Amino acid sequence: MATVRKGFTYDEINIGDHASFTKTVTESDVQAYTGITGDFNAAHVDDVYMHESALGKKMQGRIAHGMLTAGFFSTVLGSYLPGRGTLYLSQTCIFRAPVKLGDTITAKGEVVEKMEKNKIRLKMTGVNQHGTLVIEGEALVTAASRIEDTL
Amino acid sequence: MATVRKGFTYDEINIGDHASFTKTVTESDVQAYTGITGDFNAAHVDDVYMHESALGKKMQGRIAHGMLTAGFFSTVLGSYLPGRGTLYLSQTCIFRAPVKLGDTITAKGEVVEKMEKNKIRLKMTGVNQHGTLVIEGEALVTAASRIEDTL
Amino acid sequence: MATVRKGFTYDEINIGDHASFTKTVTESDVQAYTGITGDFNAAHVDDVYMHESALGKKMQGRIAHGMLTAGFFSTVLGSYLPGRGTLYLSQTCIFRAPVKLGDTITAKGEVVEKMEKNKIRLKMTGVNQHGTLVIEGEALVTAASRIEDTL
Amino acid sequence: MATVRKGFTYDEINIGDHASFTKTVTESDVQAYTGITGDFNAAHVDDVYMHESALGKKMQGRIAHGMLTAGFFSTVLGSYLPGRGTLYLSQTCIFRAPVKLGDTITAKGEVVEKMEKNKIRLKMTGVNQHGTLVIEGEALVTAASRIEDTL
Repeated sequence: MATVRKGFTYDEINIGDHASFTKTVTESDVQAYTGITGDFNAAHVDDVYMHESALGKKMQGRIAHGMLTAGFFSTVLGSYLPGRGTLYLSQTCIFRAPVKLGDTITAKGEVVEKMEKNKIRLKMTGVNQHGTLVIEGEALVTAASRIEDTL
Repeated sequence: MATVRKGFTYDEINIGDHASFTKTVTESDVQAYTGITGDFNAAHVDDVYMHESALGKKMQGRIAHGMLTAGFFSTVLGSYLPGRGTLYLSQTCIFRAPVKLGDTITAKGEVVEKMEKNKIRLKMTGVNQHGTLVIEGEALVTAASRIEDTL
Repeated sequence: MATVRKGFTYDEINIGDHASFTKTVTESDVQAYTGITGDFNAAHVDDVYMHESALGKKMQGRIAHGMLTAGFFSTVLGSYLPGRGTLYLSQTCIFRAPVKLGDTITAKGEVVEKMEKNKIRLKMTGVNQHGTLVIEGEALVTAASRIEDTL
Repeated sequence: MATVRKGFTYDEINIGDHASFTKTVTESDVQAYTGITGDFNAAHVDDVYMHESALGKKMQGRIAHGMLTAGFFSTVLGSYLPGRGTLYLSQTCIFRAPVKLGDTITAKGEVVEKMEKNKIRLKMTGVNQHGTLVIEGEALVTAASRIEDTL
């Protein structure tokens, strides 16, 4: 039988468990994210600058905000593992390579430590369609203790 | 004469320099951010759950994604200090308190260390309209070396 | 004199009357619709999957949600025929062919039956720029009985 | 061990299996949906009309598009049951009661028949926060035949 669960409890999660989320970062994603955050840095909104300036030429066009891609970590944690019932405690992000408009990012979380008080530490990574690591970091979350909180 | 600059070079920046950005986190911000990232955790999209569940009652209603608020750090760095010419290397985020829909967040960055190769370390904080610290962390960026790259 | 009306009453509508609405389904439409509904199925958000998986190769790239296109039926009914004063009772949708990003869809409604209590039955179709039928179905609506309700 | 799956195969799904998705329908959802579809019927965009007209007074304010709520059926099917690998064949929608801005809708799908060629028929319902049935219908989908297509 297909059992559809919205989240996993602390007890159900083991070291090595992992989940991923894949999404293409579109121009409209970047535009909307710019509007939400107010980060209008030329790297994200000025196509001419990104094709003509010394800095831009390295990137060969507009790039997504690093923190937009980091948001996919939240998706992996909040929607898949642990999923419903998760409390997000902290996140580190190291931006390894630029994400270009149209890149398809696979964000992944893998449980690396189970700690006291239902805390779980996960190694987070994001790779693009070429397998290049674009972002990595560590997340600390609290998973639900009761199955009722994950339904 | 007012000279409007888009960014500051490494040499122009000193320890203790700071910049801030303030924005109200609206329901539509949260809705749009949900759509960009795919994080449909009930805490962000289910008003009933957030008023009736044990977890939700603590928050008294829907909350913004922690990583949405963290995006304001990117705004401070990419749009103000250092501003144009910044390369974002890494960010840590500790989520201290929930951000509710309608909260007004002031994100602030303060230079705490100047390092080799134009790297700058900043202490980042976010407080709500009541002065409560909701997020904090550290950013590592590279500032432009030439004034031309900040115009 | 041009009289601009927002809708037609039941008495003004005859079998065979029809109206249409044409719109290009853009990438940002699909992105926004994903965010409203929460349907992040890979067919809509993962460009790599849609070019490399067996399922995706048939489609040759991302496709719009079937229910997004079905929404154009609502536009025909609610904005043109009957227009203002319409109550939407039911809709059937048969998804005949995928809608790709960038396709231009013409949705059409044609009155096929006038029923008791101001009810009207319409045959609904959607075709793409190549004339391919992508969606069809039947709508049941109530039209306004008084001209005042259509102004 | 927590196993995170993106979808279920035809063989894994049984009659009676069900999944649900809950989301608050916000003003910004309705605004964005209006922009995507072009259905600017006064019921959705004209607050004055919906408080002053005879028709509007019954609703006591703006309501969401019926087809917006119907889109949550797509979410249940495409993201949960069957999830990844689903092909959407058809959907019927009966609009039972208006959805007001701010209502929280739980869309549910329950398998009622397994048919030849991996086809599955589901009973779909949508209820608001008061338990009122606002929409119902039937979906016909094809589920994946191979586990590889659901990962």
